[in-house]
Amino acid sequence: VTGRVVLVGAGPGDPELITVKGQRALAAADVVVYDRLVAPTLLDLAPRAQRVYVGKEPRRHAMSQPEIGELLVREAEQGHIVVRLKGGDPFVFGRGGEELDALMSANVRVEVVPGLTSATAAPCLAGIPLTERGVTSAFVVLTGHAPEAYEPLIRALPAGSATVVVLMGLSERHRIRARLLEAGWAADTPAAILLDASRPGARTWTGPLANLGAADGVGASTSPGVLVIGHVTARAARFAAASLSAEEISWPL
Amino acid sequence: VTGRVVLVGAGPGDPELITVKGQRALAAADVVVYDRLVAPTLLDLAPRAQRVYVGKEPRRHAMSQPEIGELLVREAEQGHIVVRLKGGDPFVFGRGGEELDALMSANVRVEVVPGLTSATAAPCLAGIPLTERGVTSAFVVLTGHAPEAYEPLIRALPAGSATVVVLMGLSERHRIRARLLEAGWAADTPAAILLDASRPGARTWTGPLANLGAADGVGASTSPGVLVIGHVTARAARFAAASLSAEEISWPL
Repeated sequence: VTGRVVLVGAGPGDPELITVKGQRALAAADVVVYDRLVAPTLLDLAPRAQRVYVGKEPRRHAMSQPEIGELLVREAEQGHIVVRLKGGDPFVFGRGGEELDALMSANVRVEVVPGLTSATAAPCLAGIPLTERGVTSAFVVLTGHAPEAYEPLIRALPAGSATVVVLMGLSERHRIRARLLEAGWAADTPAAILLDASRPGARTWTGPLANLGAADGVGASTSPGVLVIGHVTARAARFAAASLSAEEISWPL
Repeated sequence: VTGRVVLVGAGPGDPELITVKGQRALAAADVVVYDRLVAPTLLDLAPRAQRVYVGKEPRRHAMSQPEIGELLVREAEQGHIVVRLKGGDPFVFGRGGEELDALMSANVRVEVVPGLTSATAAPCLAGIPLTERGVTSAFVVLTGHAPEAYEPLIRALPAGSATVVVLMGLSERHRIRARLLEAGWAADTPAAILLDASRPGARTWTGPLANLGAADGVGASTSPGVLVIGHVTARAARFAAASLSAEEISWPL
């Protein structure tokens, strides 16, 4: 086995939230193919690798999905260790399945190293457990990009039966709030908006579901934002006061 | 700030699937308080730490949840850096919320380092994307431990509207299959059972939802098992053939 592709999840933003295995794959890489949301310092972990940026801004890709697939295949066929570094987890809203298909069709050997998706990491960092004994024992993860998919799901979900997490839903928060209220969710259900989780300038809005649409202070932010709706979010404000700030953390390096 | 507690997610089993930040917290720890599902080699990353095992086998805990909270508070108040190391993510079926409450009530400073939950990591490692463009843009995570919670949710979920992931659901697979079929899910919906994901001896069963209850070869396994139901699982069998086995991976250490 010579050439191969390793699909690696880079995690939610903080370069230290990559896995040890992902770090090790980068150290071995001949080529790193990376997206917009990947922390630049992660690339320094691949000192001898050629770096290829493939974009992935909403509606403005530096390279199309089929072109990315062709690039990965071509590099692996040249005998290279190719790391495909994707923000979050490769298989949670990451189009990793399509890249996997391109690789399997070309008989390229492939490995996957999971990464922390912001769907679980952002709430965790804000002191919000997605499940809690006696409160909620399920969670649902949706994307705000696909109203035709999330609207029937939200309408069907029994009110309060699961914590609802919405990725890429900041601009859809009015609509999501409306659908949940129509579906019978209580107006005072605790909700949170997590902006730039694990990145410098991370901030949390908390308030009742009824105010999720306005969400004073969030405005028309273009940061990555995660919405969380459910009783488990009630702890977030208190946690922000009790937790250590980045400046206070002084572990040895 | 002297004493503090860091809640760290150890990930799904493979010790290399901890985050770099979690690894660094262990290196700084004076005390590590750990559960059953944590890989023993992770403890070696905390060479100077006192190790406290607090059990957490189903229905057989070495220490009760309130006792764990008291232990964490006591150690932090003595000025120690305490790492609370939990399998998976601390806040996904991890009772991390209860430990957070105990710490906040005692005014102990706390930080959280998210970990990979097997709900996302196990499917990822098996080549199963939880979401896929044009196929599924949502997923639901449930626990088999709480039928009173998952049954209404499964009944309400429009058939095929989300990938369904069940943790700790191996012994409940007959019931989960029955509820999904009653709710209108097609009998040939692809399904998978992921056993011991990321651990030595990891194996995957795939088949139609109709056969999930029997699932030949799975039997009465007592391994950690993750059920995945939805069209995204169709790729798993092909991925198993295309992916590198542990023996073939030869990155430099």
